[in-house]
Amino acid sequence: MTKTNVPAERLLAFCRACFEKLGLSRKDAQLTAENLVFANLRGVDSHGVIRLKIYTERLRAGGFKASTRPKIISNHPSAAAIDAQQSMGQVAATAAMKLAIAKAKKTGLGVVTVKNSSHFGASAFYALQALKSGMIGFASTNVGPTLAPTGGREGRLGTNAVATDVPAGKNPPLVLDMATGAVAWGKIFVAQQEKRKIPTTWALDKHGAPTDDPNAAAHQGLIQPFGGYKGYGLSLFLDILTGVLSGGGFSTQVKTLYNQIESPSEVAHTCAAIRINAFLPLAQFRRRMDHLIDLMHLCPPAPGVQRIFVPGEIEHETEQRRRAEGIPLNAELLAELKTLGRDLKVKPL
Amino acid sequence: MTKTNVPAERLLAFCRACFEKLGLSRKDAQLTAENLVFANLRGVDSHGVIRLKIYTERLRAGGFKASTRPKIISNHPSAAAIDAQQSMGQVAATAAMKLAIAKAKKTGLGVVTVKNSSHFGASAFYALQALKSGMIGFASTNVGPTLAPTGGREGRLGTNAVATDVPAGKNPPLVLDMATGAVAWGKIFVAQQEKRKIPTTWALDKHGAPTDDPNAAAHQGLIQPFGGYKGYGLSLFLDILTGVLSGGGFSTQVKTLYNQIESPSEVAHTCAAIRINAFLPLAQFRRRMDHLIDLMHLCPPAPGVQRIFVPGEIEHETEQRRRAEGIPLNAELLAELKTLGRDLKVKPL
Repeated sequence: MTKTNVPAERLLAFCRACFEKLGLSRKDAQLTAENLVFANLRGVDSHGVIRLKIYTERLRAGGFKASTRPKIISNHPSAAAIDAQQSMGQVAATAAMKLAIAKAKKTGLGVVTVKNSSHFGASAFYALQALKSGMIGFASTNVGPTLAPTGGREGRLGTNAVATDVPAGKNPPLVLDMATGAVAWGKIFVAQQEKRKIPTTWALDKHGAPTDDPNAAAHQGLIQPFGGYKGYGLSLFLDILTGVLSGGGFSTQVKTLYNQIESPSEVAHTCAAIRINAFLPLAQFRRRMDHLIDLMHLCPPAPGVQRIFVPGEIEHETEQRRRAEGIPLNAELLAELKTLGRDLKVKPL
Repeated sequence: MTKTNVPAERLLAFCRACFEKLGLSRKDAQLTAENLVFANLRGVDSHGVIRLKIYTERLRAGGFKASTRPKIISNHPSAAAIDAQQSMGQVAATAAMKLAIAKAKKTGLGVVTVKNSSHFGASAFYALQALKSGMIGFASTNVGPTLAPTGGREGRLGTNAVATDVPAGKNPPLVLDMATGAVAWGKIFVAQQEKRKIPTTWALDKHGAPTDDPNAAAHQGLIQPFGGYKGYGLSLFLDILTGVLSGGGFSTQVKTLYNQIESPSEVAHTCAAIRINAFLPLAQFRRRMDHLIDLMHLCPPAPGVQRIFVPGEIEHETEQRRRAEGIPLNAELLAELKTLGRDLKVKPL
């Protein structure tokens, strides 16, 4: 498929203008646009501007609220709870992260939960905010249920996601950003198109049995958690840390982004910051991180392996390239954005 | 193999007496013995009294110090760093957890790192200490390197472990206690004995290639991280959270329990506590946890599945049974304990 490279700044301005037309303040529109373009820049296109259409639909249908503000409902020296009041997930999670960082400046640590929120895009975006304060950042979210507990055959947990961003010295930050599903649905759809079998650890058929047939997976099947029962445990723990602890939605209460778009999503997040110099000097930590990263890079490779990566490294390199060359968008997505722009009376890309 | 059931109290008294003979204070001996018997009670026999022999050897050889005390080297309202000064891992991690709980009482959160420590047994033991204060507990440790980074063929990371214990209402606490390896070596040795193939996600051969041959795995091979590159990322993150952040050993600096027994292990831990009522009322949290657990239990099962479990449930039921019936020990282990007891002049089991 042919792709057109669009400069990140132009894509950002376009998204921001769309969100302003949808009722977001200039600042909130900028933030939400930045989150989407951040994902595209890092090659995580599934969380990028491909979501602009559903966000628009949800803002119009009432499932997202353009102008409500997140509200602090519980506040302690290192802990707080926020009620997003159905604001954009990006707006609520940024507020939570900011509060967590402020707390960590004083006490060494901050953890802030968010309830009544919505899809917040790429988790690493929030966790990264901690880095400029010399902190480790952490952001997690629950999402609509598409995983069964081990042994089950109905969705009871989301592919709940967590990101942690850790500063280094000469190396770019280490960014571990992962969902708890074995694989994204997209990979199963590709296997369907290409008539290829899939590993039996990816999906369940509609009876709850592992399957290597992508059609059986796509027909009322489920994604499996990554790594079997350990991935189930992690997904469950992330739902506790976000949904249960925040007082918000958890398990089957959480709506998937594309269903019931007029209703609250009941998504919950938890953001945290750890101030490194509460434990050891920051410069020392950075040197130690570089040493750790070197130890990974210099590990003798297995046959056929060219290079060993640390988490976030591929995304960092993609970002460097895409900042220089622009973000490749395919014709279908470009057409979708064009229609959206026309519809919202926004200057086209 | 025939097994003999030994009452937990007798096993505890025996271990405590051994540790006292090895120079631990009565209190430290009790604590360390409790940690080992805790693992046996919960069916995690790999972390139980089977370790008494190597602990004894390390205490005698100087790799563990019987009488040094953990020392606080950095102290902030919600964060602290401890230098274990080569004390028993059980002693240092208990001190860290106690400090994290005290901080969480005041601020909502506590995180305490520990450097210069040693093997600390079952992680869940420490995390559980937070429950009686209405907190979520968290304990993690690094261990000697036996995992390669994805694409590598040499050990650069441990099967670093993490446990989190979460209180519920009518249900027992949810306990997620996991190592980041796909499988324990023990399972590969059993496959070797039984001449069975192993899944290709368990181990690498000595060239770094995935193998289904348990002999190739056992002959200079490596365990794989669970869940592929996500497990690698988690193991790496746990090494950062424990080893790098504590100022202690990380990656290849950490000694495996059975090598260089006269040297410091350079193991690091991180313990944390989250006070639930800093976010929402504890009673409400407990009800929500019960609801979440119900949603898992009542998920329609896949064909052939009798029952769906939540993390820690099997271990809880094993503990109930073993408290009543005693802890089954095989003849080989009983003989080993007998020899140890004779050697240390401790009254036999």
